[in-house]
Amino acid sequence: MTLKVYLSGEIHTDWRERITGGAKGLDVSFNSPVTDHDASDDCGVAIMGAEDSKFWHDHKGAKLNAIRTRKGIEDADVVVVRFGEKYKQWNAAFDAGYAAALGKSLIVLHGAEHQHALKEVDAAALAVAEQPEQVVQILRYVLEGTLPG
Amino acid sequence: MTLKVYLSGEIHTDWRERITGGAKGLDVSFNSPVTDHDASDDCGVAIMGAEDSKFWHDHKGAKLNAIRTRKGIEDADVVVVRFGEKYKQWNAAFDAGYAAALGKSLIVLHGAEHQHALKEVDAAALAVAEQPEQVVQILRYVLEGTLPG
Amino acid sequence: MTLKVYLSGEIHTDWRERITGGAKGLDVSFNSPVTDHDASDDCGVAIMGAEDSKFWHDHKGAKLNAIRTRKGIEDADVVVVRFGEKYKQWNAAFDAGYAAALGKSLIVLHGAEHQHALKEVDAAALAVAEQPEQVVQILRYVLEGTLPG
Amino acid sequence: MTLKVYLSGEIHTDWRERITGGAKGLDVSFNSPVTDHDASDDCGVAIMGAEDSKFWHDHKGAKLNAIRTRKGIEDADVVVVRFGEKYKQWNAAFDAGYAAALGKSLIVLHGAEHQHALKEVDAAALAVAEQPEQVVQILRYVLEGTLPG
Amino acid sequence: MTLKVYLSGEIHTDWRERITGGAKGLDVSFNSPVTDHDASDDCGVAIMGAEDSKFWHDHKGAKLNAIRTRKGIEDADVVVVRFGEKYKQWNAAFDAGYAAALGKSLIVLHGAEHQHALKEVDAAALAVAEQPEQVVQILRYVLEGTLPG
Amino acid sequence: MTLKVYLSGEIHTDWRERITGGAKGLDVSFNSPVTDHDASDDCGVAIMGAEDSKFWHDHKGAKLNAIRTRKGIEDADVVVVRFGEKYKQWNAAFDAGYAAALGKSLIVLHGAEHQHALKEVDAAALAVAEQPEQVVQILRYVLEGTLPG
Amino acid sequence: MTLKVYLSGEIHTDWRERITGGAKGLDVSFNSPVTDHDASDDCGVAIMGAEDSKFWHDHKGAKLNAIRTRKGIEDADVVVVRFGEKYKQWNAAFDAGYAAALGKSLIVLHGAEHQHALKEVDAAALAVAEQPEQVVQILRYVLEGTLPG
Amino acid sequence: MTLKVYLSGEIHTDWRERITGGAKGLDVSFNSPVTDHDASDDCGVAIMGAEDSKFWHDHKGAKLNAIRTRKGIEDADVVVVRFGEKYKQWNAAFDAGYAAALGKSLIVLHGAEHQHALKEVDAAALAVAEQPEQVVQILRYVLEGTLPG
Repeated sequence: MTLKVYLSGEIHTDWRERITGGAKGLDVSFNSPVTDHDASDDCGVAIMGAEDSKFWHDHKGAKLNAIRTRKGIEDADVVVVRFGEKYKQWNAAFDAGYAAALGKSLIVLHGAEHQHALKEVDAAALAVAEQPEQVVQILRYVLEGTLPG
Repeated sequence: MTLKVYLSGEIHTDWRERITGGAKGLDVSFNSPVTDHDASDDCGVAIMGAEDSKFWHDHKGAKLNAIRTRKGIEDADVVVVRFGEKYKQWNAAFDAGYAAALGKSLIVLHGAEHQHALKEVDAAALAVAEQPEQVVQILRYVLEGTLPG
Repeated sequence: MTLKVYLSGEIHTDWRERITGGAKGLDVSFNSPVTDHDASDDCGVAIMGAEDSKFWHDHKGAKLNAIRTRKGIEDADVVVVRFGEKYKQWNAAFDAGYAAALGKSLIVLHGAEHQHALKEVDAAALAVAEQPEQVVQILRYVLEGTLPG
Repeated sequence: MTLKVYLSGEIHTDWRERITGGAKGLDVSFNSPVTDHDASDDCGVAIMGAEDSKFWHDHKGAKLNAIRTRKGIEDADVVVVRFGEKYKQWNAAFDAGYAAALGKSLIVLHGAEHQHALKEVDAAALAVAEQPEQVVQILRYVLEGTLPG
Repeated sequence: MTLKVYLSGEIHTDWRERITGGAKGLDVSFNSPVTDHDASDDCGVAIMGAEDSKFWHDHKGAKLNAIRTRKGIEDADVVVVRFGEKYKQWNAAFDAGYAAALGKSLIVLHGAEHQHALKEVDAAALAVAEQPEQVVQILRYVLEGTLPG
Repeated sequence: MTLKVYLSGEIHTDWRERITGGAKGLDVSFNSPVTDHDASDDCGVAIMGAEDSKFWHDHKGAKLNAIRTRKGIEDADVVVVRFGEKYKQWNAAFDAGYAAALGKSLIVLHGAEHQHALKEVDAAALAVAEQPEQVVQILRYVLEGTLPG
Repeated sequence: MTLKVYLSGEIHTDWRERITGGAKGLDVSFNSPVTDHDASDDCGVAIMGAEDSKFWHDHKGAKLNAIRTRKGIEDADVVVVRFGEKYKQWNAAFDAGYAAALGKSLIVLHGAEHQHALKEVDAAALAVAEQPEQVVQILRYVLEGTLPG
Repeated sequence: MTLKVYLSGEIHTDWRERITGGAKGLDVSFNSPVTDHDASDDCGVAIMGAEDSKFWHDHKGAKLNAIRTRKGIEDADVVVVRFGEKYKQWNAAFDAGYAAALGKSLIVLHGAEHQHALKEVDAAALAVAEQPEQVVQILRYVLEGTLPG
């Protein structure tokens, strides 16, 4: 059993590396959005031409990113969504809703301070964790049936 | 043609009333989440028993609210999602993602200050507006083909 | 909003009547399996001819009942599954799995003594209750936003 | 033709080994839930933290197990569900219902003493057998067209 | 509960009338193909112009009839397929396969002489009967839970 | 049986009126896009604000019109697509492809001069006609089984 | 592009060999039902035990064969259905209907004498041929774009 | 991540070669219709026999081509549709609608002169470009996150 895992959400800390590094040796294939913030913001105009309006500048980029994001989520067995400490992160919550509607197994990763604000997202999840290492332990258990310690 | 419209998101201003009032006479049936904030927070424990932990208190409530929310979105032709000026509003973005994955027509309603943060949500929408009255105009146009003014 | 509710499971107590009676005045349409135990067991052979083997006797009946059960579940917004104190009740758990796979909102109703044995079924539910009256309260809240007391 | 087979249900006898052993040389890939009873019960709290309440202890574990179970069933061509002599085994019946709703080919494995109680589950199956060796014969016939003896 | 029933197959005896007549008073809505044999054969060329080739003459008609047939089957809860004593009746078997793939409840109606030749079709059915009156009894049982006699 | 029919395509002749007028008395409910050419072109900017660029002017309008078009097609049993003598009419062909992928019954209406260019669209259709009156005859036949003359 | 092709229908002539032999070198993977007539008739009772009644003897076998048949059709890109000169062949027409409802590309293979009786099946097909060699030519054209001669 | 890309539309310029050549080294698998114009027009009659009528000549060919086209689109993650300077190209718009209804990521490629006529198609796309090289840049960005220059 190979598990396809999509890592959605926060792009300012090393949580993805902690998961992919920790999962070395497990039969998992990871996928994620483009995490280069500037490229992600400007990809639309860089390829398809500049826009005067900030709205359409962002619009072209967001649609381009959606090609990758939707394939990543639709191909996945498990979607992990990380909410960091800062920013609105509405795209993370959007991805979580998108994954839930497709019946994907959802794992939500966030600190205790966001518990109340994320209650609807957590309610759609099969697991809620605080640390990337817990996600690694979940993947190991799901694949191999072994628990930490 | 009757249009079924679900009004998701912010619950602290009168935007729903401005839409449902403005749409009087149009062939629209509206639906929305429970907008009584306290009832929405406490419904789970009020009916199924108290919880010591805040997480499970919220969890029971969020799941109960999901019975209504999912039916509302799944039955809808059009899902309007309103982002207000305050709070995280991750459940609004979650609903938008859920609606998008189901192929619903999405209308997003927010002020200019949130444009950049909502670019992925806007990119999945068929219309982005700032005022509830514009949503009424959209519904009138979709149903009757008439434009304002 | 009319809520279509299917009442699956135990047929030896009056829990269905307590729900349908309690929900009077709510915009709910209820459906349920044939709850006449003898008719349910013998319907196949009574209509399509006797069988020597108990297996095929039961098989003909179970398939006939499936015409009603599947329509009931597929049409429903909410599936309530009741586990009583006696019997194996595998058809109740089967209905719960069937409903879950179709993405129906699942409410499970059982006594505390079955908590551990039903943990996988409960994990797929949006609400777990012990008393039929709690199901009525849930339906009232989902439809009208009002809580008991 | 590779047949993907998920082996659901009873975990206290060696029926899975008798099937996977007997099917050596056939083009089948098997999958199954975690069959370590203690790990399966405690996985949720072992990874995501202890719970005071038995209900939530079980709930966290059951959801975690669902990540594996649902992928196993959704990926499968054939779902074999074994009902043993003891316990409620509601999760086995739940899996059978889940598989049936997804249109999977269902094989049910149980002793004669459970025939009447399992009639609804059997009615949804394409084969009902008593011995694991019969399941091996079924898989061989389906794949290679050869019958025993 | 209204049951939508599609009556497919043989058009040379009065079996449809015996079912619809017998079901008077039941909450059933019936649908069926055009049963005027000549109209059914010639509808394509009568409306869209003559063809030199018999193949295309038939083709235009068969496609036109498919508009009605597919809607009838797709809308139905229950599809009854009748095989008469004469002719190839491949369109009846085609309808049965079409209905089965859509997950419709299938009732097959045929005489004992066709039992072996129809075994694959019967295997996909929830009921197999010989007389139209048995279909009426099935519909009554499914809707009202009452058995004959 | 009520037939829901969506009338897509050309907006410069009276073909819709000839169909809806001719179908008076039949159990059909018709739907169609906004056929006011100017409103259709300018709806986006009229409601949501002007754009400097023609591309985004058109884009906002086309998306707004998609709310109506998609509901119309998704609700329909039968989609009639009319290709007139002038213009590119790519939106008509787009609607035909959209309807075909959803499994709708497709009727194509065009003059003989477009036969070769429309061969792929015609190949996906259940009927190809030249005159609106033929579509009326098709609807009458599908609903009532009667042929012209 | 690998094309998955399922060969359904008649089992008394060498048409399958003529197709698989002729398609050597093409990127096609073939699948088909068990074509050993006796094994196909008796598989159910041979594995799961004898039946007194011919109906249930056949029923057990037909369901077992359905495990293979449904996987074969559901996995396929193209379903070829061959109608021979003899027998009722209702299972062939059933497979054709099943494949059509799943949106598979259908190729029908039959002699001119069956043209009228098969008009509904042909109307659902993307190609109708008389000789197995034409099916090979079709597969070659679809995969490589080359025509015979 | 391998991206499956279908290249639909215009067959008279070298745009496909410019994309497949430019994408060398990227993890993309390309698919496309038969681009030999004569073979595409005559394939039906060449294999299945001549037709007197041009309509049926074209019909047989268009259906045969649909076997390849539909598989190509249904397998794809991304569908690129190119509109050239000449011809009606209704099959290109049909493919775009088909892809959109299946939820594929759509990239539209056309010159500025077609902007207004293609506004509905563009509105369903995630990217609109003028040059094949931009499509290569899009594929590189989606797969590797790198932007040109």
